[in-house]
Amino acid sequence: MRRILFATTLGVALAAGSAYAADTPENLVKYRKAVMKSLGGHFGAISAVVKGEVSYGAHVANHARALRDVAPLIGAVFPPNSTYDQFKDTNALPEVWSKPAEFKQAVEAFEKAAADFVPVAEAGDAQAITASFGAMARTCGGCHKTFRYDPKKK
Amino acid sequence: MRRILFATTLGVALAAGSAYAADTPENLVKYRKAVMKSLGGHFGAISAVVKGEVSYGAHVANHARALRDVAPLIGAVFPPNSTYDQFKDTNALPEVWSKPAEFKQAVEAFEKAAADFVPVAEAGDAQAITASFGAMARTCGGCHKTFRYDPKKK
Repeated sequence: MRRILFATTLGVALAAGSAYAADTPENLVKYRKAVMKSLGGHFGAISAVVKGEVSYGAHVANHARALRDVAPLIGAVFPPNSTYDQFKDTNALPEVWSKPAEFKQAVEAFEKAAADFVPVAEAGDAQAITASFGAMARTCGGCHKTFRYDPKKK
Repeated sequence: MRRILFATTLGVALAAGSAYAADTPENLVKYRKAVMKSLGGHFGAISAVVKGEVSYGAHVANHARALRDVAPLIGAVFPPNSTYDQFKDTNALPEVWSKPAEFKQAVEAFEKAAADFVPVAEAGDAQAITASFGAMARTCGGCHKTFRYDPKKK
């Protein structure tokens, strides 16, 4: 990964929960994309195994644990000042903010499915993994269908 | 994440370690890229916090645990039939395979740094996190410098 510069604002950055200037829409979207990129990476890796493209079955549990660890962060990465209108470089739809109860429910469905997937992945039974991974995939799709803009649709 | 198709070759796919037809260079590179994408996502997310761009300090430990869980997989995702020459869509350099001892050492350095980062991230001290994350970042760069093709350099 690329070399990075360390800023002097670290202390502020680590004071979690405090609103501060650096939380610009651009930075919030950048962070959200990094989180989604990580999820997409794990998801794609597991998917390649489940589809029989690669024989890395022993890796599935590791990716499952990573998904479980990151899923609970999703609810926090859509603050009000990171909307679609304010910053074009995001596919988050206005419904994220106009339907907060539904959005919360969709996110929590993924969080639960990701947690449920871990023991199944660790047990290593192929059929059970297919079923549990499919269930988790549907929670991804369930949220994306309503709350993510799909450029291909229009 | 996108909807996926489940293949009937799952049983074979999950029989980890067994060589089989689906492990084509293309599929191996695809899988490796998914793994690297996940690492890049977590790394970018932590980096945004450490640089003071976002106030998600509380998320760092989650990303750290994900990195630790996936780091041990890296050594396995560069099998001999996934080389640069055979499949152009990868930045893995021939040195990965011509200098196996050095490559192993570089991968293990990251694996160790990722494991070391977890307790530091969980403790939450900003200065210690900066130092430990920097140390981990150097192990990324240490491997990439020798073993990853950089299109910008040539």
